[in-house]
Amino acid sequence: MTVDPPTTASLFTGLSAFPLTPLADDRLDERSFARQIERLAGAGVDSITVLGSTGSYAYLTSEERARAAALAVANAGTTPVFVGVGALRTSQVLANVRSAEDAGARGILLAPMTYQPLTADDVYGLFGTVAEATELPVIVYDNPGTTRFEFTTELYGRIAELPGIASIKIPGVPADPGEARTRVDEIRAVVPGHVTIGVSGDASAAAGLNAGCDTWYSVIGGTLPDVALKISRAAREGRGADAVAESARLAPLWGLFAEFGGSLRVVAAIAEHLGLAPERCLPLPIQGLSEAQRSRVADVVRDLGLDG
Amino acid sequence: MTVDPPTTASLFTGLSAFPLTPLADDRLDERSFARQIERLAGAGVDSITVLGSTGSYAYLTSEERARAAALAVANAGTTPVFVGVGALRTSQVLANVRSAEDAGARGILLAPMTYQPLTADDVYGLFGTVAEATELPVIVYDNPGTTRFEFTTELYGRIAELPGIASIKIPGVPADPGEARTRVDEIRAVVPGHVTIGVSGDASAAAGLNAGCDTWYSVIGGTLPDVALKISRAAREGRGADAVAESARLAPLWGLFAEFGGSLRVVAAIAEHLGLAPERCLPLPIQGLSEAQRSRVADVVRDLGLDG
Repeated sequence: MTVDPPTTASLFTGLSAFPLTPLADDRLDERSFARQIERLAGAGVDSITVLGSTGSYAYLTSEERARAAALAVANAGTTPVFVGVGALRTSQVLANVRSAEDAGARGILLAPMTYQPLTADDVYGLFGTVAEATELPVIVYDNPGTTRFEFTTELYGRIAELPGIASIKIPGVPADPGEARTRVDEIRAVVPGHVTIGVSGDASAAAGLNAGCDTWYSVIGGTLPDVALKISRAAREGRGADAVAESARLAPLWGLFAEFGGSLRVVAAIAEHLGLAPERCLPLPIQGLSEAQRSRVADVVRDLGLDG
Repeated sequence: MTVDPPTTASLFTGLSAFPLTPLADDRLDERSFARQIERLAGAGVDSITVLGSTGSYAYLTSEERARAAALAVANAGTTPVFVGVGALRTSQVLANVRSAEDAGARGILLAPMTYQPLTADDVYGLFGTVAEATELPVIVYDNPGTTRFEFTTELYGRIAELPGIASIKIPGVPADPGEARTRVDEIRAVVPGHVTIGVSGDASAAAGLNAGCDTWYSVIGGTLPDVALKISRAAREGRGADAVAESARLAPLWGLFAEFGGSLRVVAAIAEHLGLAPERCLPLPIQGLSEAQRSRVADVVRDLGLDG
């Protein structure tokens, strides 16, 4: 496979894969992490975003995060690596930005983590400070299920005007194609043309891409890259119905995400089942799925042919 | 003033004051922190809980937390000091428990911080691990406004059965005395008799104490100890109406808490106004109140005679 070095314009398009950061005995499992990165690069994903929510960034020390960023770049070949830099305190975010730069990241992903609820001005100030502190392009990470911060469309617009903002990672879009298009157009209307829009919420990725999102910031892309690429490529090649059909085929997987409190525990169980991560690879206190739940995950993986 | 060394039974009763942990230029302002602690001990609060939510525990490094715990114990005289040990990852919590022990804390406060939402079993497991790892009594910290974890009464009961659990810090109670009593009785029915119940949410503290709570885990107690002691002592001495009247007198303060997104930014502005903390003492990205908002806070402080 030939991978052309992406231009800045295209860097934040296509499929960005979000791998897990597996722990073993509460330490970064460097070997399985490096193997995951190699596997994603080999599969041909357009970019790899390490230390996203799926990559447990919020749970790791700054040293662990620096190490993971360096390992990712070292094992990704020519595939661009983006690094999550979010933290509760601005000074900690800036330290993570430094280590992402040192690692050779091509972009950074920043979510407004909260303990005390933040105001819109707090969040705008955070993005302004970070954008000023680095030359790396910034992905605005809107993940209200974890950060509990609710972006408004207006705030997207204010932040997107900051120099260095390259992309916005939005939560899922409505399943209805018309409503999805309306939502994406609404965002597009308030952000500069060079800022790409990336959908997350894997179950609505096909709908988001068909509605005009430039990128899919993908949880399953980090563990099941082939099936994610099938959806991503169909949408990009104008075969929107094929993207929707493949997403619909994965309904049992989306069902497990909904039933088991989100994608993280399910994807970790899949990675463990496939031997991509050690057993119980999530940071405690997150216990991960029960044996009975894991057995259901394994059934779905087999039935959907995701273990091939 | 005579301070009797409390017995274990009475340790988690009365007024527990939650001071700020002021930062100056993003570093722990040791001098103002130590002075705050001395001031609280001098005022005669029953205990001091450092590194609560008001103490910005979630934003501080483990080194800063160890230092704050040690400073608190060194400056509290005979007043017992409890230390918040919460963190996103269990191993980080255990490191904070060690530093609280080393500092000479008399108890620890543990909130189930979340980034990924936690299950009840995750939280139960966390408390079990911590209770097993220390001889220090544990205060279960239920603060859904910051942790986004919703305890059930049933989960209070399960956790309270663990050895070492000494107290439960509950959110505010209903304003109606009958409803408040029903809520406290409901909790009392599921926890062992040695586990005290402490109310937080300062605006409902008088209602909570009158309804049978043993303790007030108090934000204003950390910055305005005299007025908090007035409410606490009235309630404990059976002068429930006096407690309610003093709380009602403070309605303009409670109004600012509600209007400005909670107590933290308001109390920080009060501490800064009174010279107890340096300007802009909260950790960024929390910007604190605007000048116009601070001016309103100062007016309320003056009108209520809280600057005396």
